[in-house]
Amino acid sequence: MPGSSFGQSFRVTTAGESHGPAQVVIIDGCPPGIPLTVDDLRHDLGRRRPGQSRLVTARQESDEPEILSGVFEDVTTGTPIAILIRNQDQRSRDYEALRDLYRPGHADQTYDAKYGRGDHRGGGRSSARETVARVAAGAVARKLIMRAFNGVVLGYVESVGGIVASIDDPAAVTIEQVEQLPDRSPNVVRCPDHGSAAEMASLIESVRLDQDSIGGVGVVVAKNVPAGLGEPVFDKIKADLAKALFSIPAVMGVEYGLGFECARKRGSECNDPFIGETDGSDQVRIRTRGNRHGGILGGISSGMPIVLRVAVKPTSSLPREQETVTRAGAPAVVSVHGRHDPCLLPRFVPIAEAMTAIVLADHWLRWRGQCGDSI
Amino acid sequence: MPGSSFGQSFRVTTAGESHGPAQVVIIDGCPPGIPLTVDDLRHDLGRRRPGQSRLVTARQESDEPEILSGVFEDVTTGTPIAILIRNQDQRSRDYEALRDLYRPGHADQTYDAKYGRGDHRGGGRSSARETVARVAAGAVARKLIMRAFNGVVLGYVESVGGIVASIDDPAAVTIEQVEQLPDRSPNVVRCPDHGSAAEMASLIESVRLDQDSIGGVGVVVAKNVPAGLGEPVFDKIKADLAKALFSIPAVMGVEYGLGFECARKRGSECNDPFIGETDGSDQVRIRTRGNRHGGILGGISSGMPIVLRVAVKPTSSLPREQETVTRAGAPAVVSVHGRHDPCLLPRFVPIAEAMTAIVLADHWLRWRGQCGDSI
Amino acid sequence: MPGSSFGQSFRVTTAGESHGPAQVVIIDGCPPGIPLTVDDLRHDLGRRRPGQSRLVTARQESDEPEILSGVFEDVTTGTPIAILIRNQDQRSRDYEALRDLYRPGHADQTYDAKYGRGDHRGGGRSSARETVARVAAGAVARKLIMRAFNGVVLGYVESVGGIVASIDDPAAVTIEQVEQLPDRSPNVVRCPDHGSAAEMASLIESVRLDQDSIGGVGVVVAKNVPAGLGEPVFDKIKADLAKALFSIPAVMGVEYGLGFECARKRGSECNDPFIGETDGSDQVRIRTRGNRHGGILGGISSGMPIVLRVAVKPTSSLPREQETVTRAGAPAVVSVHGRHDPCLLPRFVPIAEAMTAIVLADHWLRWRGQCGDSI
Amino acid sequence: MPGSSFGQSFRVTTAGESHGPAQVVIIDGCPPGIPLTVDDLRHDLGRRRPGQSRLVTARQESDEPEILSGVFEDVTTGTPIAILIRNQDQRSRDYEALRDLYRPGHADQTYDAKYGRGDHRGGGRSSARETVARVAAGAVARKLIMRAFNGVVLGYVESVGGIVASIDDPAAVTIEQVEQLPDRSPNVVRCPDHGSAAEMASLIESVRLDQDSIGGVGVVVAKNVPAGLGEPVFDKIKADLAKALFSIPAVMGVEYGLGFECARKRGSECNDPFIGETDGSDQVRIRTRGNRHGGILGGISSGMPIVLRVAVKPTSSLPREQETVTRAGAPAVVSVHGRHDPCLLPRFVPIAEAMTAIVLADHWLRWRGQCGDSI
Repeated sequence: MPGSSFGQSFRVTTAGESHGPAQVVIIDGCPPGIPLTVDDLRHDLGRRRPGQSRLVTARQESDEPEILSGVFEDVTTGTPIAILIRNQDQRSRDYEALRDLYRPGHADQTYDAKYGRGDHRGGGRSSARETVARVAAGAVARKLIMRAFNGVVLGYVESVGGIVASIDDPAAVTIEQVEQLPDRSPNVVRCPDHGSAAEMASLIESVRLDQDSIGGVGVVVAKNVPAGLGEPVFDKIKADLAKALFSIPAVMGVEYGLGFECARKRGSECNDPFIGETDGSDQVRIRTRGNRHGGILGGISSGMPIVLRVAVKPTSSLPREQETVTRAGAPAVVSVHGRHDPCLLPRFVPIAEAMTAIVLADHWLRWRGQCGDSI
Repeated sequence: MPGSSFGQSFRVTTAGESHGPAQVVIIDGCPPGIPLTVDDLRHDLGRRRPGQSRLVTARQESDEPEILSGVFEDVTTGTPIAILIRNQDQRSRDYEALRDLYRPGHADQTYDAKYGRGDHRGGGRSSARETVARVAAGAVARKLIMRAFNGVVLGYVESVGGIVASIDDPAAVTIEQVEQLPDRSPNVVRCPDHGSAAEMASLIESVRLDQDSIGGVGVVVAKNVPAGLGEPVFDKIKADLAKALFSIPAVMGVEYGLGFECARKRGSECNDPFIGETDGSDQVRIRTRGNRHGGILGGISSGMPIVLRVAVKPTSSLPREQETVTRAGAPAVVSVHGRHDPCLLPRFVPIAEAMTAIVLADHWLRWRGQCGDSI
Repeated sequence: MPGSSFGQSFRVTTAGESHGPAQVVIIDGCPPGIPLTVDDLRHDLGRRRPGQSRLVTARQESDEPEILSGVFEDVTTGTPIAILIRNQDQRSRDYEALRDLYRPGHADQTYDAKYGRGDHRGGGRSSARETVARVAAGAVARKLIMRAFNGVVLGYVESVGGIVASIDDPAAVTIEQVEQLPDRSPNVVRCPDHGSAAEMASLIESVRLDQDSIGGVGVVVAKNVPAGLGEPVFDKIKADLAKALFSIPAVMGVEYGLGFECARKRGSECNDPFIGETDGSDQVRIRTRGNRHGGILGGISSGMPIVLRVAVKPTSSLPREQETVTRAGAPAVVSVHGRHDPCLLPRFVPIAEAMTAIVLADHWLRWRGQCGDSI
Repeated sequence: MPGSSFGQSFRVTTAGESHGPAQVVIIDGCPPGIPLTVDDLRHDLGRRRPGQSRLVTARQESDEPEILSGVFEDVTTGTPIAILIRNQDQRSRDYEALRDLYRPGHADQTYDAKYGRGDHRGGGRSSARETVARVAAGAVARKLIMRAFNGVVLGYVESVGGIVASIDDPAAVTIEQVEQLPDRSPNVVRCPDHGSAAEMASLIESVRLDQDSIGGVGVVVAKNVPAGLGEPVFDKIKADLAKALFSIPAVMGVEYGLGFECARKRGSECNDPFIGETDGSDQVRIRTRGNRHGGILGGISSGMPIVLRVAVKPTSSLPREQETVTRAGAPAVVSVHGRHDPCLLPRFVPIAEAMTAIVLADHWLRWRGQCGDSI
């Protein structure tokens, strides 16, 4: 099966290139009866949109979504939801000079190897422009998981270069901390530790002036996820989330809970003891003391917050000169003068949230199908 | 679609619980005409088999595979290959005491949440016993990629606890270094840096005596992978490999090339310049200087070795007492006295190789279907 | 994706050749908590089993199923159910003479064209022997639909050659009429019109003596199917049932309700008027007067019985001489002396029922996932 | 997986309702390098378009396609091809009167049962308007199979009501016979027997004046299909084609070759003998004498023309009064005054061709992936 679809029960299929006419996404399998308007989509699309500050690309896109199907009188009907988002600020001429050059760190060479000469403009299908369709689909997934289990997905920037935020409990971070500074101005870096956020902003600006770029780490937290989502053995929710996140451009690493740190630890330092909680009623809720496991055990959600960390590489497009070759293999020098984020992290956050929400929506529907009621 | 199948064109479906009668795997989509015998399967199964040293579980399994279909006169026919591996040393009585206890770090609680009471013996479907079926399938995948593109997949142990092997070039590690010590005795730890291997063995033994366990990092390298494998946008080979590896029990993190390190770096430190290589003929082969990208660009193989690192948590089963609760939520103490590896890494290596080979076989067939010949 | 799997949520994967060691089926996605024993499987397998009368093949197979996984203490666990059925009476020597001949009406030539030389014995994977795995899976599906919606699937033989049973209402046929004659002896033809059944038995016997074979029509009725199963637009339940039935060897045609007859009619003669039924309570149940539509409207079940008819061709294997060619294309004559049913219909019934039950189980789980509860 | 996608390797996903803003289709998996323009799409869309004569619906749709992605400089790139077709002549007010009535023969009741209240206008997703997206995808599939194996798919109308065309050899029918009358005027009925065509036209017109509708049979022939396409056991090309055709609205029956007729015949009357053909060279081509099997044996193409027949019911929408109920179950009378074809067959032809071409494209890619080259 080709690679432009994701999910089994909540199934997202996208199409579109960076410099073609439009991005389109079809979401199939969404339950009927969920209120949905273009305003729901606009909110997340706005968070992803370029051109919001000097820290991100200056490309201007209104990213106005049009719902083509699957919604009637502002409620989902159960039939596939198609959303169209036109590309506007394409400036293909920026890319004429790159027609025969392989940009280091980009997919030009690998797409050529796979497909032969395709659409070279702005990376074509490999461009992060494609993620706008995922964010639209993620907005629908968010509505679904909110109704299904009060599910909330929130991401933030944990580090940029060597600057690491100080966050005691990822599950306690709020959307306000991520999106706003104390003076209510936009938190353009999306780091909830506002002291670190200011340092990150300075670092990104200095890197930009140096015609360079910088990497970082994003965190995504999913709250109120019920225990029991995920499929043994291949479609563990851990596996599907990892696939979802590694499908986002520039992702180089993913870890859950203690992650790579557990490689240096003993079992007695990693296992989270189970405890029983009562809330006044006779009902005992089982949870763990601590969340070193990151909310997933045996590939299935444990009921604790799902916490994952994602390493994002520095933007590959650099205005400075880089050594490379032409398509024919001749030595060359390339400078990429398009409009590119010097640091991908701020805009990575809503994209990672969207993919996480899509996986949760999918696995909740899968759970309901197989296990939802007693039979 | 349920979660016991993996791959699109080379499709692996497994069934079996730790303490049921057998493990079975059906491999559908394998091309006809590939020589295959049970000996091909025995080799990899032997590397995974428990009971090989004190460092791994003492469970005794002959793991003798029976090919039920898809092979005629020692050659694949193109029809599905079914392989049956009986469970032998099940000792279900070891688990009677655990019937109502949730073992920390295990899937008991999450499976209960999903399915209600299932098969509690040895973790049932969540047990690593299930991976024997994957290794059998991986042996078939290895034959395919060897014939298709001379592909080789080799894994090794990079670290156990704080002991980190010194490896200059992952792609230069040999199977002999991984499997044998200089005196030709088995390298039970599977670390190709034999000095570190000895230290790791000591550490694992001391941890075992301490009734504890220890984590580590495994590395997998895939060589001779042609440029062009992987699908935009969701089925990037990076995404599918990550899913494959995160589907193995106990995996907590995956990274490619520079991985999490790139989060602290600048673009000018991460991009690998392209260079053209000639080999005497007029043909120019394009490759990169360095392999910080780990063999994948834009989600598609670049022709450089694919290098990935996997964080494996310490074994969750500990003979020492751990705090927990019963299924009803009452406080309890549990000691897990079954036969368990104090460190999962040595036996993780062939499992990770198998999953990697399966992904490569799948994507090569997918590539051939869409792009294999000019049309 | 290769072709040995069927269904999305209730997913059946089979492997096995006619003359290999065994048939195996993995059923993934079955809900937990359903009582299931080998006796449940034996019942349907017994109805399909060869060697029951002179009207069907004399091949002797005990068809004893072994449940390898997914069932614990006689209840499904929610993990994949693997069932193994050994082949016993293989007599491969019967097929040595056919190694290089293409049997007319068989898959020898088409398999050769696809795969090159494979397993020629008894048709290998193309043999109806493979359907034993489907019947085992169907037995599980039956348990599921019975619990889910009191669903019952019953098939029967409507015609053999020119002998057509007189059946007023397909939905009123009982399992007793199909399986037993008035004297409680087995109704070997499985035609519920016992007068016609006797004629059919005579016809089949005379055809057999004439070294020939004969075709017929089978009917399948699914009762108590709730309105609302089936997916627009491609996975209509009408489409998935047709695929399921055409996947059975020897099927040449499928029709629903009026079927081909509607091609000669006017709309006013085909539409079934809706009516409201009350059962004493205030609840109105909507149904149709008549069932010319066959229980499916717009590809979705209407709540009326699903009624479908299947044309099954005469057995292709004939003891008499037939003109053909060798693999090399040289003219030849072939007589197929294996043990073959002179009429496929009697044993077709349980196979068709099994595939129908699998589709219903699958679509019910799909319905529950997307639409099962209000959200 | 939801039901709006079709095919494994050539994967078609559609969205859109009858009275929403647009229809959209995403075709994923198409090989790169195939010339494709909107003119290629316009041709088939024009053949399906309503409003061409009094025999079909008067709805006016320009059906102008816009290619949103996957094509660059008039050549496919290998990335997903999205095509947008706006709805224009929607007249939703025609449907206000039907908001609470179940039209007999329509999907109103079954959609309600599945989804609850959805989009009632013109059948929403169940409308044949949706097939415009399939025809667009089919146009791409046609280009692919033409390049891959010179494949041609041609359909025609065999019967309308009791009028049955006289066609000696379905594989000899030409596109000119189907589309044009001897005087070069359009053959609006698409029956290649022009005498019958005139009778059919009269019958349809008289039925229309009688406020009724009429059914018929369509035939589809696929020529030059190489032997070897189709997958055992569930994804037989016979099974996938049947699913494709039964997914088209109003289809009540499908048969191949002799079809239901074989139910009355003996094996000696149904088997097609194999013969070897030489064409001057030493190469022997194996084919069958006669084509009673319809081009598929064992579920795999035999190299003979694939010939299938499809029963299409009379249009369910009738201007005359029909008995029905309201959504609440109260007795009512309904007359459907929208613009509807009195006979679906003429416009059914290009839709059936499109679905057939999609299946062939899919199976050819699947074949190439698994078996395309020696390995």
